[in-house]
Amino acid sequence: MTMEKKTLLTDCPDAIGLISKITNICYKHQLNIVHNNEFVDNTNKQFFMRTELEGYFNDKTFLADLDHALPTGSHRRLVSSERKRIVIMVTKEAHCIGDILVKAYDGTLDVDIAAVVGNYDTLGKLTEKFDIPFHHVSHEGLTREEHEDKLLACINQYEPNYVVLAKYMRILTPEFVSAFPHQIINIHHSFLPAFIGAKPYLQAFERGVKIIGATAHFVTNDLDEGPIITQNVIPVDHNFSAKDMARSGRDVEKSVLSKALGLVVDDRVFVHGNRTIIL
Amino acid sequence: MTMEKKTLLTDCPDAIGLISKITNICYKHQLNIVHNNEFVDNTNKQFFMRTELEGYFNDKTFLADLDHALPTGSHRRLVSSERKRIVIMVTKEAHCIGDILVKAYDGTLDVDIAAVVGNYDTLGKLTEKFDIPFHHVSHEGLTREEHEDKLLACINQYEPNYVVLAKYMRILTPEFVSAFPHQIINIHHSFLPAFIGAKPYLQAFERGVKIIGATAHFVTNDLDEGPIITQNVIPVDHNFSAKDMARSGRDVEKSVLSKALGLVVDDRVFVHGNRTIIL
Amino acid sequence: MTMEKKTLLTDCPDAIGLISKITNICYKHQLNIVHNNEFVDNTNKQFFMRTELEGYFNDKTFLADLDHALPTGSHRRLVSSERKRIVIMVTKEAHCIGDILVKAYDGTLDVDIAAVVGNYDTLGKLTEKFDIPFHHVSHEGLTREEHEDKLLACINQYEPNYVVLAKYMRILTPEFVSAFPHQIINIHHSFLPAFIGAKPYLQAFERGVKIIGATAHFVTNDLDEGPIITQNVIPVDHNFSAKDMARSGRDVEKSVLSKALGLVVDDRVFVHGNRTIIL
Amino acid sequence: MTMEKKTLLTDCPDAIGLISKITNICYKHQLNIVHNNEFVDNTNKQFFMRTELEGYFNDKTFLADLDHALPTGSHRRLVSSERKRIVIMVTKEAHCIGDILVKAYDGTLDVDIAAVVGNYDTLGKLTEKFDIPFHHVSHEGLTREEHEDKLLACINQYEPNYVVLAKYMRILTPEFVSAFPHQIINIHHSFLPAFIGAKPYLQAFERGVKIIGATAHFVTNDLDEGPIITQNVIPVDHNFSAKDMARSGRDVEKSVLSKALGLVVDDRVFVHGNRTIIL
Repeated sequence: MTMEKKTLLTDCPDAIGLISKITNICYKHQLNIVHNNEFVDNTNKQFFMRTELEGYFNDKTFLADLDHALPTGSHRRLVSSERKRIVIMVTKEAHCIGDILVKAYDGTLDVDIAAVVGNYDTLGKLTEKFDIPFHHVSHEGLTREEHEDKLLACINQYEPNYVVLAKYMRILTPEFVSAFPHQIINIHHSFLPAFIGAKPYLQAFERGVKIIGATAHFVTNDLDEGPIITQNVIPVDHNFSAKDMARSGRDVEKSVLSKALGLVVDDRVFVHGNRTIIL
Repeated sequence: MTMEKKTLLTDCPDAIGLISKITNICYKHQLNIVHNNEFVDNTNKQFFMRTELEGYFNDKTFLADLDHALPTGSHRRLVSSERKRIVIMVTKEAHCIGDILVKAYDGTLDVDIAAVVGNYDTLGKLTEKFDIPFHHVSHEGLTREEHEDKLLACINQYEPNYVVLAKYMRILTPEFVSAFPHQIINIHHSFLPAFIGAKPYLQAFERGVKIIGATAHFVTNDLDEGPIITQNVIPVDHNFSAKDMARSGRDVEKSVLSKALGLVVDDRVFVHGNRTIIL
Repeated sequence: MTMEKKTLLTDCPDAIGLISKITNICYKHQLNIVHNNEFVDNTNKQFFMRTELEGYFNDKTFLADLDHALPTGSHRRLVSSERKRIVIMVTKEAHCIGDILVKAYDGTLDVDIAAVVGNYDTLGKLTEKFDIPFHHVSHEGLTREEHEDKLLACINQYEPNYVVLAKYMRILTPEFVSAFPHQIINIHHSFLPAFIGAKPYLQAFERGVKIIGATAHFVTNDLDEGPIITQNVIPVDHNFSAKDMARSGRDVEKSVLSKALGLVVDDRVFVHGNRTIIL
Repeated sequence: MTMEKKTLLTDCPDAIGLISKITNICYKHQLNIVHNNEFVDNTNKQFFMRTELEGYFNDKTFLADLDHALPTGSHRRLVSSERKRIVIMVTKEAHCIGDILVKAYDGTLDVDIAAVVGNYDTLGKLTEKFDIPFHHVSHEGLTREEHEDKLLACINQYEPNYVVLAKYMRILTPEFVSAFPHQIINIHHSFLPAFIGAKPYLQAFERGVKIIGATAHFVTNDLDEGPIITQNVIPVDHNFSAKDMARSGRDVEKSVLSKALGLVVDDRVFVHGNRTIIL
């Protein structure tokens, strides 16, 4: 056996003594708690705990002990510290994909970019600069279903842990989404729930807002309605045309998306209903 | 004649040479430009200029010269530096009114609070600590129209320049609003246009947003749809209940409202369509 | 015995199994953990835990059990949920004291303001509007030691939990500070450690910074060098004179100070060396 | 003659009627003012104006008319809308250079990156992905003067408008700096003037600050003391080690640097004494 680092993620109905029970089992298994965070959602009576552990793991007996101790309806996962594999979907804009490529290149983002898939070929050259395969899966002349079948075939060969929509500008069907439950991360270029749907910067300009933003969220079947992971904003004023807003918004979009991606691949994000708990 | 300070506000269709024409007239009248800001809305081809002037004013000839020089459809106002008079409307929450009372007391806000009007008497004691008249105009047992007639009668005796809704929690009718065109400033406790209407913090909690905010805007007939003056936000996370959000939001609400009020009474806010230009 | 809420604050050298040991003792005493936060400072190998408990307390046996379980060099406190008593020291500026007065008045800040002490009488009228005793303890004609003796005599009669310097513009001697170890909270009107000492806004103006800020910290013997509790900033630009910065900074100063005060009276702030841990 | 866009930058002692004089000359030359911004520094009695013009330029007669109208001690420049050429200096960190490379690639930053020069070869591969020449000018075994002579020889062949220090981690001599007056832009990884000099994140960690930041500034002879162009900050807390701060700071550093670079190449930045005016 070798010394390993793993993360235990516990998500269960709240009950008295949970922290004590879980940490006792860690103690019994001689696993050192490097970092621990827990949260109790008092509204929904739900308990969440993220425990970074170090030691010699016997996964089977450790999880069996946990299952014995935890209440009915509990979910627990013991995640290895292995690097996550992602596939990125894009259309034409370079800023988000560019940021992820550079961050993966210099180690800021600890991910393995398996491939990039675009419905246009615009970003092929940029992707290939980083020695990552680019697949051009055009939607032209295809029904939505035909197109998504091709996308799925392309993506699935890489068996990604997560699919990242880095300004992929087409709506996905429930069928596609259901293939990756809570595994698709999207960046929406507004401070959701303001300006749902198309052309959020134009909407923001027309409404005369003084702040614009971006939202990274898991994709569910309801357009722009999935659980929010991160958001950020920047001030704007009357000097900004809709185009200026779009231009200024790029830095926010990319930093929000890569921050969300970092949290997800670090196994810090729990989803409960339509909300995220980040531990 | 005595040396005076006045502010010229010009709002007109854009044309070549406007700055030159207006500043020439100032120069001809020996008025020193202390501060000048202009903005051209290229989408709507509209020109805005705010000019702080110092000198010996002959308002009549100065404005006549301007009217002669400016294109058809121009608006210009020459505003004295006299302190603005406001009436504040409240319901039960103390933070916004409390902030304005303290800021007017110590001179941070250069306004004359003529009176405070509440549909409950909750804030009477606080108001009177600052030697400002408080009027309790209850809505109970009255139709909306009867209540607003009483409010109008009460407010109008003070001839205010602006009416400030400092967490006044009732909807106003178009009749009331039309009595004070672009003179009513409201604070809405969300980052508009997200969470229009009632209980925005509860809506924000349920949507699971990671940022909450507040919006100060002029009141028009469309609820929460008037021109936005200022907005600000603060980060929140899964630890915040709806109640925690409301509590944390208070500091944002009050600073956004008093910032907007400061801009308005400094004659810095132009309204064009549903947008504000702040010079 | 009645059901009570108390907060356990533990601060000790890090060791394996601490969370488990402490939560086991809570469990054994039938105390429900309402909220728990812990932090391990890996650099200094120090463990911090804040545990909100609910139940029927036998303080003596509970603490004895803890003392038995915790390693040598541990500090633990069991704090009742009783409201904290503060004395506020001021000079002439109204914004910070005004904010605390309004927030204590409307319940946003859960503190009992026992008294306000000023070295000028400027803020007496404002304080007394809120039915709080104001003491004018002038420094004129006194040595620093004589003045502080008078201040101490005045303050000590109220036996405050904390002393809040709400823009008290005089330096305190080590003797005065040592009378209230980690009990004096100051607001410094800069983003420390930038612009230590006098006239920070003038310094900021002269340096041409694009952001200004405020810092709330515990007072130690080294001027402006104590452990930082909260900081915040606002953007400025070339349009801001030093005076404009000071004016705009007021909202940041007051919100930073009252946020820090709220954290302290909620027993959320641990001090370790010159750093704070906020749980 | 063809229709052109140029920007007039005026920087002169303040005097009555300046706006009127300058705009009259534009009018006389049939040059349309697309955008105009001016600022008067009342402390130093200095006038700044940035005027975007469109029309048929006769530079010689236009500038002669201006020189005739402006007071003694005036500076004015008429800048063509041609894209600026930059040389970037780096050491080993990829985030700032990566951001500029991607932004120049996708057109977000309107600059021509002539070359990248590194004192290590670490970033050669990344640079060359974007088909930009990389020069490895090692400092090893050389005196500072010898190294800078080599750097200058390398840089000067590209005749850059600006030199960008994108985390170039060596101090430059006054001789080097004087070769590019107000043409060298540096990113410092702290919120200046806090944490001048080496290892600012370690300093920030040790001081226990709650906010960290980054500063882009022109390089002058005094280390980290040059005129500040842009600054930004992010919140941190006790969970952040010095290393975590450094990691989180990268996004701020890169966005601050590329924002500053965008302002400079748009001819928006005036320097007066040690302050910048951004119009």
